[in-house]
Amino acid sequence: MPTAQDIESAAQRIAPFINRTPSFSSLRFNELSGGDYIFKGEHLQLTGAFKARGAMNAVLVNKESAADSGVITHSSGNHGAALAWAASQVGAKAFIIMPSNAPKSKIAAVEHYGGIITFCEPNLEARETTASKVQKETGAHLIHPYDNYDIIAGQATATYELLKDNPEIEHLFVPVGGGGLLSGAALANYFFGNAKIYGCEPELARDAHDGFLTGKRVIVNNSDTIADGLKTSLGKKNFPIIKSYVSQIILLTEKEIENGWHTCLETTKQFIEPSAATGVAAALKTQLTGKCGILLCGGNMDVRKFALR
Amino acid sequence: MPTAQDIESAAQRIAPFINRTPSFSSLRFNELSGGDYIFKGEHLQLTGAFKARGAMNAVLVNKESAADSGVITHSSGNHGAALAWAASQVGAKAFIIMPSNAPKSKIAAVEHYGGIITFCEPNLEARETTASKVQKETGAHLIHPYDNYDIIAGQATATYELLKDNPEIEHLFVPVGGGGLLSGAALANYFFGNAKIYGCEPELARDAHDGFLTGKRVIVNNSDTIADGLKTSLGKKNFPIIKSYVSQIILLTEKEIENGWHTCLETTKQFIEPSAATGVAAALKTQLTGKCGILLCGGNMDVRKFALR
Repeated sequence: MPTAQDIESAAQRIAPFINRTPSFSSLRFNELSGGDYIFKGEHLQLTGAFKARGAMNAVLVNKESAADSGVITHSSGNHGAALAWAASQVGAKAFIIMPSNAPKSKIAAVEHYGGIITFCEPNLEARETTASKVQKETGAHLIHPYDNYDIIAGQATATYELLKDNPEIEHLFVPVGGGGLLSGAALANYFFGNAKIYGCEPELARDAHDGFLTGKRVIVNNSDTIADGLKTSLGKKNFPIIKSYVSQIILLTEKEIENGWHTCLETTKQFIEPSAATGVAAALKTQLTGKCGILLCGGNMDVRKFALR
Repeated sequence: MPTAQDIESAAQRIAPFINRTPSFSSLRFNELSGGDYIFKGEHLQLTGAFKARGAMNAVLVNKESAADSGVITHSSGNHGAALAWAASQVGAKAFIIMPSNAPKSKIAAVEHYGGIITFCEPNLEARETTASKVQKETGAHLIHPYDNYDIIAGQATATYELLKDNPEIEHLFVPVGGGGLLSGAALANYFFGNAKIYGCEPELARDAHDGFLTGKRVIVNNSDTIADGLKTSLGKKNFPIIKSYVSQIILLTEKEIENGWHTCLETTKQFIEPSAATGVAAALKTQLTGKCGILLCGGNMDVRKFALR
């Protein structure tokens, strides 16, 4: 499990490559939520999401093997693009396994950063088989999107930055899918902060919530939530960290997530992806007072579907 | 016509009240546009648009009469909300004449800032008659949304800030409706900058373009452009300034404006109103090289119409 030193080292290691993302606030949002809020803008991170942190850390930690044989992953979401970007920063190859039905915008992002795509059938088995096959052919180093300590230490740096700048934060809202961001936030807060950490999860993908309550890791399949980055179930390495260092998992309905997204647009003019809106929705739902923070985890979605007329 | 001193005084006068809005850039946008761009984020201004600058300046210049009898305007757009907000900052009343069919979000904004609304029939004659009637009853000081030198000096401060921070800007794109922002930008640049200034206007409301070419002020009525803040025709005080100190008026189709809006969302994650997208669209259309700037004039629109599903 990452130590305080691992998180600080990750922060130093990736600093020359990533954005130290801005924080901001909104008087109107404070009126609506009842708290004194700071938003951490990871939608303004390179590649459009916090995933650049973990990917860059994992690539740098494994720099030599990455330079020799490249890195590989089978994430179709933000991690795929982030890993392609991170590999390109050190001149390494990135092999990205994507389902044949992946959105065009996700494919374009991976291509834009020079990732080498192999398409497969759109199911988990085909992804893993294809990844395993490409890995054997290339010798590339597998970097899992969240179930990986280098990734967790990298994602922890977002919370590390936020709490270094704002040590008075009492409550921190963090979206949870596979748990890379949330387990990193929980550890960063344990070592460097004094906040209560809340995982924010769609009711339609409530594995973290149910696992947290029962103490046993749960798997959710084929969720239809609009928060598409949060459909995955908690990783094996992420679950125990979350169980130990997170205060609560807050469930959000689809309507609450959509209202959080609209409210974020209205009050901050920041365009975030629906996954990030779970944090905003949880803040509006809980109406906590005092100094609060929200990790806006990313801003990647297909905007062309929104017609002005 | 405002002098260099008028603009500097306005900047000092309003500084304690307004946001010194941030500037930012996007590597991806630079790739798409061919230039080296700085965005000035007036969508992050108080009240959600640059209009807070002019309204605050006009209220402060007329502080005594405003405190005695209030201020009045018949703008249904961002100026109405901005004037209500500015008046509230000095404890003055603001009378806002609004058409009975004004969007709910605009009415809510004026009410939020404590504006006293009088509704009228939705046509220019009714607006002016009603404003005149309320003005006689109250003795309030009329503050026109753009055809007013205090307003022009106030709006000029956005460009003044941008050029003070970035004196190397060679090309500056500015949306044009009534011409308050554009005439202010042109004067600020004339006194403090070295850029070419481009007015950015919808083809469906091309009065500035046609007036600029013929030398005679033109009136456009009932435009159906999506850039709803730019439907108005140039004011009498704005036209000669624009004729003298602006390099060119660039016309944008509705499709180009919508593409500019989408591209801004994708590359900067900033949520702007369609009027602001004309500047983005003009940058993409002209493909100028060198150091360029875009004034993102505002971020107010009804976001609830965008459904996530």
